[in-house]
Amino acid sequence: MAVSTGGAALADDAGIRVREVGSFHIGGSPITLSGAEPREAYVAEGQPPARVDPNGDFETGQVYVQYVRLVRPRSRLPLLMWHGGGLTGACFESTPDGRAGWQQRFLASGLDVYLADGFGGGRASWQRYPEISLAEPLFRTKRELWELFRVGPAGSYATDAARRRPYADTRFPVASFEALVRQTVPRFRTYDRSTQAGYDALVVKVGPSVILTHSAAGPLGFAATIAAPDHVRAHVAIEPSGAPDPSTVDLDRLRRIPHLIIWGDHLDADDSWGDLYASTRRFHDALRKAGGRSTWIDLPTMGHRGNSHMIMMDANSHQVAHLIDSWLKKNAR
Amino acid sequence: MAVSTGGAALADDAGIRVREVGSFHIGGSPITLSGAEPREAYVAEGQPPARVDPNGDFETGQVYVQYVRLVRPRSRLPLLMWHGGGLTGACFESTPDGRAGWQQRFLASGLDVYLADGFGGGRASWQRYPEISLAEPLFRTKRELWELFRVGPAGSYATDAARRRPYADTRFPVASFEALVRQTVPRFRTYDRSTQAGYDALVVKVGPSVILTHSAAGPLGFAATIAAPDHVRAHVAIEPSGAPDPSTVDLDRLRRIPHLIIWGDHLDADDSWGDLYASTRRFHDALRKAGGRSTWIDLPTMGHRGNSHMIMMDANSHQVAHLIDSWLKKNAR
Repeated sequence: MAVSTGGAALADDAGIRVREVGSFHIGGSPITLSGAEPREAYVAEGQPPARVDPNGDFETGQVYVQYVRLVRPRSRLPLLMWHGGGLTGACFESTPDGRAGWQQRFLASGLDVYLADGFGGGRASWQRYPEISLAEPLFRTKRELWELFRVGPAGSYATDAARRRPYADTRFPVASFEALVRQTVPRFRTYDRSTQAGYDALVVKVGPSVILTHSAAGPLGFAATIAAPDHVRAHVAIEPSGAPDPSTVDLDRLRRIPHLIIWGDHLDADDSWGDLYASTRRFHDALRKAGGRSTWIDLPTMGHRGNSHMIMMDANSHQVAHLIDSWLKKNAR
Repeated sequence: MAVSTGGAALADDAGIRVREVGSFHIGGSPITLSGAEPREAYVAEGQPPARVDPNGDFETGQVYVQYVRLVRPRSRLPLLMWHGGGLTGACFESTPDGRAGWQQRFLASGLDVYLADGFGGGRASWQRYPEISLAEPLFRTKRELWELFRVGPAGSYATDAARRRPYADTRFPVASFEALVRQTVPRFRTYDRSTQAGYDALVVKVGPSVILTHSAAGPLGFAATIAAPDHVRAHVAIEPSGAPDPSTVDLDRLRRIPHLIIWGDHLDADDSWGDLYASTRRFHDALRKAGGRSTWIDLPTMGHRGNSHMIMMDANSHQVAHLIDSWLKKNAR
């Protein structure tokens, strides 16, 4: 029975000694809907629809957190990983082509690992729109995902996989693109505040920890660090969707918190990447100027060409995990 | 840092020796939307909406599966757990009041454990409605959940927690009711076929295994067993939402597959429970009459009073897990 490859190679014969696996929801609050019109609800094939009253009490805004805690972690600092927009914590699990994911790798390296699903996706629910959610989410098409995640340039996607033209040097496992698509979820843009609040509460609950953020969670990570510099002991930002304007931040609060910022390839795919890159660079430069520690890595400069936006899924994901792990061992013990 | 209780007591000093954690999606197929009207999409606070073209290619119908595989499981048969309607695999993780869940308990007992999210919820996405999903999902109110899950009788829910009147003998952790609510997800009734197909494919992919189903996944489990009796080696059905009409099933195919069917308390809450109970009893009786092995457990008869529909979350969930585990050791090696 081979449901994956690569995992067994990472744990030694003794395996990964796990104390506990579990999960919880954090954040969230009650909300009551009233005055909404009754609706017809599909019940089952062949049955007439039922009339449903949509009004009542709900819970909204909660974040889902799933953890694996080791018998003897190498560090008192667990690693919290926060996914990007339209994704869930699953992006850090097995890669689309079935290789061990970053969750497995960091566990095997001796860290407690917590994966979150931000409110609105995955195991952190969503509420009806527009009444509670304000607007429908973005349902990204496969073309949009192909281009957004920089698997290939604009115009290179095709419905027929055989006709797609990824970047010639892409490290993304192109043959498993559908597996990536299947793990995406609708993206509510109105939920970032709830997710931020949930992550802020998570950091307080867990205590001193390291956060690793991707894409749209980058800004959430910077904010969480600024809000709780005694808790967030390091921040690894993978292609963050920008960083705060340093003039609006008390950089002194961040001086003791090491940052590691990692970028892939083909960032010239469109202007938006350039803007996010520049915004983050400005923050990085200002932090260093203020005496803080921030390490900037452009993977192509280090000889890793072809990384997509989904660095944790690319063919060299294990090498990047190793790079991050080495940095953590030096900077976040 | 106390994010949960009870887990550490279950693993011995050596912990649970895990070979690998990971996940994959299974099932699902491409779908193309065309001819849908452009929409206004919320972008961010303070920004005007953007115009979005909803047409394009998507993937639909996929199921999410997350596994923990041990270095040395006690059985070659992994345990696959399939959640009920409006829930996700998280229902088998930590209980709402932070105790170790069935996932942890069966791992500690030496079984590989696979949790699934059926299509439409959790980490198995959903598609826009009505264009692809046909109808909006059910967004269950807190009142509906309180009554449906038999925490208290009809009319006993109140917005103010202090005014709720659960069953006097309820084993459900009532003070953590909101934690249960927060893990629920909208329930698409149009997705059962996709989920069935995904589960059928999962059973083939994993090979010989034991399935544990809850509620609406019960019928999916019976069907998966009938479809693949060489793969499903035992079926534990927790309050299944009915079972097949035995006259429509080749019971001979199931004769070698032990079944364990478990019910909680207060099944007189409303008529629907009586119908599901009777439907399942008819199947159980017919299976035994045909020479098959099926064990029926009414927890109150065994001295466990007050179980809700969410037996895996109730205060005696560990005792029921032990009961299941003992049965598995005898019937599904």
